[in-house]
Amino acid sequence: MTATTPPANATLADLGEFGLIAALKERFVQGEHVLIGPGDDAAVVAVPDGRVVVSTDLLIDTRHFRRDWSPAVDIGHKACAQNLSDINAMGGRATALTVGLAAPPDLPAAWALELAEGIAAEAALVGASVVGGDVTRADEVMIAITVLGSCDGAPVLRSGARAGDVVALAGRQGWAAAGLAVLGRGFRSPRVLVEAHRRPEPPYDAGPQAASLGATAMIDLSDGLLGDVGHIAEDSGVAIDVRTESFDVAEPLQAVGAALGADPMQFILTGGDDHALVATFPAGTLLPKEWTPIGEVAVGSGVTVDGAEHDGPSGHQHFS
Amino acid sequence: MTATTPPANATLADLGEFGLIAALKERFVQGEHVLIGPGDDAAVVAVPDGRVVVSTDLLIDTRHFRRDWSPAVDIGHKACAQNLSDINAMGGRATALTVGLAAPPDLPAAWALELAEGIAAEAALVGASVVGGDVTRADEVMIAITVLGSCDGAPVLRSGARAGDVVALAGRQGWAAAGLAVLGRGFRSPRVLVEAHRRPEPPYDAGPQAASLGATAMIDLSDGLLGDVGHIAEDSGVAIDVRTESFDVAEPLQAVGAALGADPMQFILTGGDDHALVATFPAGTLLPKEWTPIGEVAVGSGVTVDGAEHDGPSGHQHFS
Repeated sequence: MTATTPPANATLADLGEFGLIAALKERFVQGEHVLIGPGDDAAVVAVPDGRVVVSTDLLIDTRHFRRDWSPAVDIGHKACAQNLSDINAMGGRATALTVGLAAPPDLPAAWALELAEGIAAEAALVGASVVGGDVTRADEVMIAITVLGSCDGAPVLRSGARAGDVVALAGRQGWAAAGLAVLGRGFRSPRVLVEAHRRPEPPYDAGPQAASLGATAMIDLSDGLLGDVGHIAEDSGVAIDVRTESFDVAEPLQAVGAALGADPMQFILTGGDDHALVATFPAGTLLPKEWTPIGEVAVGSGVTVDGAEHDGPSGHQHFS
Repeated sequence: MTATTPPANATLADLGEFGLIAALKERFVQGEHVLIGPGDDAAVVAVPDGRVVVSTDLLIDTRHFRRDWSPAVDIGHKACAQNLSDINAMGGRATALTVGLAAPPDLPAAWALELAEGIAAEAALVGASVVGGDVTRADEVMIAITVLGSCDGAPVLRSGARAGDVVALAGRQGWAAAGLAVLGRGFRSPRVLVEAHRRPEPPYDAGPQAASLGATAMIDLSDGLLGDVGHIAEDSGVAIDVRTESFDVAEPLQAVGAALGADPMQFILTGGDDHALVATFPAGTLLPKEWTPIGEVAVGSGVTVDGAEHDGPSGHQHFS
């Protein structure tokens, strides 16, 4: 089925609520998990293992995305990736999403539909479907996504790390932060970093892989590596030391560090938005190539870098 | 555990993101369905029947609620009820919710916490728990709720009505619309109608009851009785006639009709927000007292009232 495309200059007001919903539904292909798709009072999704993993995120225009910095399709990919990554961090796989869109009536309809296409395409990477949602009028553009998923075995929490465990990283880390720094200075290159900011590539196979390898704790890096590793340390009641020599500082990060006069290791230690994973494994676990050891768990509390306290920013709080 | 209460004049900015999340979590008691509650990358909820029912709604300040018309606790009850009702309309029971709150930093913290208490109290009516959420800064107050639930048997869709079926109503209908009309004229009484607008009382047992009685189709009345009955007619490919003599026009509705010079039947036929249910049942089904027959299904299409077309407004579209 080819999706209907409204006239290029149509707004949400031109489409109307029911026209928008119909156009959105065309863009959301329903996978095999979906027993009842969009269009009824609720959707129904198969959960063969008898338990559902669920997470939700809000994204607000100009705070979590910028329409002048990213095309709508990339904002859709990124908004969806952020949610899928939360299921990944439990060792699960996403199966279904709901999407709420609040927007002013003069928003171009094409923007909303390209957003939907980005969400659907990212979800398809893991076999998940958009099964429902809501649209409403608001002054700001706001995107509310809830994701459902399944774990084959027990979910991997933040609280299971034990002294002696190895800390390991899967996925790119620091690229999105470097891309944001580039955009913030008004530049558009290195292109690979700008694209990493616009459209993260979370390691979707690494979460279930870590679970099957016996990971004791896991988290997705959305607020910065040190801040998120700190959540594992706190919830597990352990100390974690991160070794900077473990990281391969990729060439584009070095280039941006040199151009901006910044230490590229800061992008790696404090950057978020790549949605890499950090997990802890029992010592001696044979780690596949997707996982790079970056530190160790010890008795105690807090996070250190190369054995010393780190004095950079480690996260972000809203409302402050 | 007694929930922490911030100083009376504290704002969200005073609490900060992590302080707000901690205070919200205290207000969300976790029920027996919840395997992993708030605080990790995702929550985990038991789904013993192997399939999960899911629905989502967005509510925007001044459009879906008015902070000058309703206390925060009532807005919480209403926002939650609207979501629980969608599961009710599938013949299911809600088990878990996620709640997203976007708000400006100067919002009183007490408002957000009272909202949470209202949501939690309404969810508790059906044994559901708030298992996760997200908070973020925005210029407008927006509430995004997603609800998960379970059906004992097959979900009841909008599309199963057949010619010859009886159409029946469960729950109060028209009260919230009459209450809104009262508030819109600047009045605060009859109090029972204003309260019906502020805090609907959906018939939460009637949905699963209808499913077990063999209902062929069901919908929750959120956009007005005729509009929502029209969705059943359209999705089922049938005609539905609604008989006005079936309705008991309650005394407060008559009083408001007389005071405002309006036909109180209009509140019943076109009002939304009571979250009553309409279902269709095979002819001859012995209906318990919760269900009042209000019409019949026939071959054809469209909705008629007492055999004739109805020329009032029948629903609401956003963006228009």
